[in-house]
Amino acid sequence: MSVKIYLDESEIPRQWYNIAADLPTKPPLAPDGSPLTPEMLAPVFPMNLIEQEVSTQRWIDIPQEVLDILYRWRPSPLKRAVFLEKALNTPAKIFYKDESVSPAGSHKPNSSVPQVWYNKQAGTKTLTTETGAGQWGSALSFACSLLGLTCKVYMVRISFDQKPFRKVMMETWGGKCIASPSTETQFGRKILEQDPNTPGSLGIAISEAVEAAVSDQTGSTKYTLGSVLNHVMLHQTIIGLEAKKQLAKVGIKKPDVVIACVGGGSNFAGISFPFVHDVINGEQIDIIPVEPASCPTLTRGIFHYDFGDSAGMTPLLPMYTLGHNFIPEPIHAGGLRYHGMSPLVSKAAKDGLISPRAVHQLECYKAAVLWARTEGGIIAPESSHAVAATIQEAIKAREEGKEKVILMNLSGHGHLDLAGYSKFFAGQLVDHSHPQEAIEKAEKELEAFPEA
Amino acid sequence: MSVKIYLDESEIPRQWYNIAADLPTKPPLAPDGSPLTPEMLAPVFPMNLIEQEVSTQRWIDIPQEVLDILYRWRPSPLKRAVFLEKALNTPAKIFYKDESVSPAGSHKPNSSVPQVWYNKQAGTKTLTTETGAGQWGSALSFACSLLGLTCKVYMVRISFDQKPFRKVMMETWGGKCIASPSTETQFGRKILEQDPNTPGSLGIAISEAVEAAVSDQTGSTKYTLGSVLNHVMLHQTIIGLEAKKQLAKVGIKKPDVVIACVGGGSNFAGISFPFVHDVINGEQIDIIPVEPASCPTLTRGIFHYDFGDSAGMTPLLPMYTLGHNFIPEPIHAGGLRYHGMSPLVSKAAKDGLISPRAVHQLECYKAAVLWARTEGGIIAPESSHAVAATIQEAIKAREEGKEKVILMNLSGHGHLDLAGYSKFFAGQLVDHSHPQEAIEKAEKELEAFPEA
Repeated sequence: MSVKIYLDESEIPRQWYNIAADLPTKPPLAPDGSPLTPEMLAPVFPMNLIEQEVSTQRWIDIPQEVLDILYRWRPSPLKRAVFLEKALNTPAKIFYKDESVSPAGSHKPNSSVPQVWYNKQAGTKTLTTETGAGQWGSALSFACSLLGLTCKVYMVRISFDQKPFRKVMMETWGGKCIASPSTETQFGRKILEQDPNTPGSLGIAISEAVEAAVSDQTGSTKYTLGSVLNHVMLHQTIIGLEAKKQLAKVGIKKPDVVIACVGGGSNFAGISFPFVHDVINGEQIDIIPVEPASCPTLTRGIFHYDFGDSAGMTPLLPMYTLGHNFIPEPIHAGGLRYHGMSPLVSKAAKDGLISPRAVHQLECYKAAVLWARTEGGIIAPESSHAVAATIQEAIKAREEGKEKVILMNLSGHGHLDLAGYSKFFAGQLVDHSHPQEAIEKAEKELEAFPEA
Repeated sequence: MSVKIYLDESEIPRQWYNIAADLPTKPPLAPDGSPLTPEMLAPVFPMNLIEQEVSTQRWIDIPQEVLDILYRWRPSPLKRAVFLEKALNTPAKIFYKDESVSPAGSHKPNSSVPQVWYNKQAGTKTLTTETGAGQWGSALSFACSLLGLTCKVYMVRISFDQKPFRKVMMETWGGKCIASPSTETQFGRKILEQDPNTPGSLGIAISEAVEAAVSDQTGSTKYTLGSVLNHVMLHQTIIGLEAKKQLAKVGIKKPDVVIACVGGGSNFAGISFPFVHDVINGEQIDIIPVEPASCPTLTRGIFHYDFGDSAGMTPLLPMYTLGHNFIPEPIHAGGLRYHGMSPLVSKAAKDGLISPRAVHQLECYKAAVLWARTEGGIIAPESSHAVAATIQEAIKAREEGKEKVILMNLSGHGHLDLAGYSKFFAGQLVDHSHPQEAIEKAEKELEAFPEA
């Protein structure tokens, strides 16, 4: 059997799968708890994306011009991790979608390209956003560069410092990258006054990027989000739809296990939602979102309405949350340091369609090093969470003597994350747990908002 | 037309093309100018690779176990640079082999994998090498990791400092990376005494790596070279052989122009030698090796016997050289900072089969930025030399109104080379020319050695 399964460009899925058609969620609410109207979102997003955000149509066409850009690296290869299988002496067959092959190095351009394209259609000239590990900021800069929009990225300070070259990468694509909290926004200045040494968080950076967008009175500046929202999950489903076709090519009707890391949800949703669809329709597939034990939103968080950001500027979303004031430990998987979770992923967990799992940082780095020394690639710290769980499942398959098919999403490469590897080798990394007091504190704070 | 042309794994070339069968060169000589016997190389290389080095057999089988590892990323995709074509408004069709998709990020593993495999067959336990930009050191660490050998890499100090994360990458694959000149070898200590602040050079690092190998009295430590030698050129020809098959798939019988950057010669030889073969047999193809103007070995060097290293430990090779004492300016394309050139590439240039070209650093970075903003990828500074010449040729095709087919080799990504981009954006980079006095000085020094 080949270790790489390609699809021809002509075989690319031409529609995204919208799980909102099969998994109804409660609607977002305005910050004051009142119903949210599309008009209220209009200062932040263009109307065509707002329509996509609230759509319950099951299949949505991918515009041809978007496909023309995605063709640069899509369909992405499905690969078989034969050398890892051998090292683990497992009867499991481990397949992985390699999303690291995109120019920006992760799955993120699957959504940045359509988001920039829809914004351009709507007349947007400048896009703002936040980025954690830098993957989304890179992806948005890349897409803006190709489509001719201006791009401004607020990068969580801890990641900005840990990964200095992410900024250069964004600049190479013509984007502007600012450490968050910054002095450029009211909210950033406020946070810096309270704690000049804060590592920042995705929540804070979101607040700054939204403020920068809505404060442009001309209306030509909009905000983009690289995860969490329904339309982002939608765009990413191309991953799982491709994977289905690729598995079929080698005679596999369905995987037994689907694994992906989860922060805001986009990488996980991307590979899993087409399979969650099958679970809803009675298939037996074990679908595992993997999160850091230091930011255990799905495994220990509270299912409740909460803000998507830290400042309380975004709508209230019905989701698993650790509380919007929670600032996660500065682990190296910056893309997974988020207090909340995509409402659609949250609903799938709440309904028992998926089986969340938390893993610790050191186990993840050990898994990443084993991956490098067997499969070869240097992977992102985020992706190492998926690899850690994949190794757990492959060992379980060996113990059970079962020839399981495991499908994993490799969200990105770690070429700009080597500082973390360096600290790991130097023995400078530790595991962080999430204290019970933090959960109790969040529960109290959430009492002010409606139940989800 | 698809923008990506894949080959199935079953279509991979199963033999390397050995241009030595069609392009006879003078033999290497011992450092004292006497004939070199295979036995004299035995302390440095295993006998199976020495046999390959001196072979004049036109086609050499690729071992199945080597193919099993190459399948991870080979056949590499051939891509069409449609967005660059559009930006340049050129009638030229620009195709490029994307060698950045290997786990180590460049074309180098095409040779590190077979070199480690042949060494393992011969009983070698430890391999030493030098690395300029870090690409070869990474590739050797990667291959040693998969095949279970110990790896020790001497990295040119200027690159070691410019690219701190290359070391971490090598360590992730279990390799050891040492800044050169180092205090670990006699030669390194000697150089450091003369100039403690030397940026180092490939020539110095080669000397250190050879010394480290031959000083192991057990004979189980051997040296590897990532370029220059015949067997390395041989291994890389898989690139051009694949490209031929891929062009044929879209109905292209031959390219009009073939372009690759050239330092020691391996990346250039890899894509071009199968086409040089056609030129020898009467085809009209313009084959362009592109080198830095600050290290213009092919365009301004002297065709003469010279040492491959700086210490005079290696055999004398018949090649274009700037003199083995020449230390190139610390440009960011570290992989192109080499005083000499593959004897086979040199002979092809001497015989007029190829048309060398030199480009300056700033033009290369401008080309790299245009590439990122059109095609998307962040490329290595070495590769940017090929892109700069490709842009020149595409513009020429526009001016001539000709629908030329240009085939370029993209040797690697620049994810670990962002410090150079950063300096470019900050306006801190300058162009370096090669002074005429340096040529004259080298000419005098070379008088001590036989003519090539």
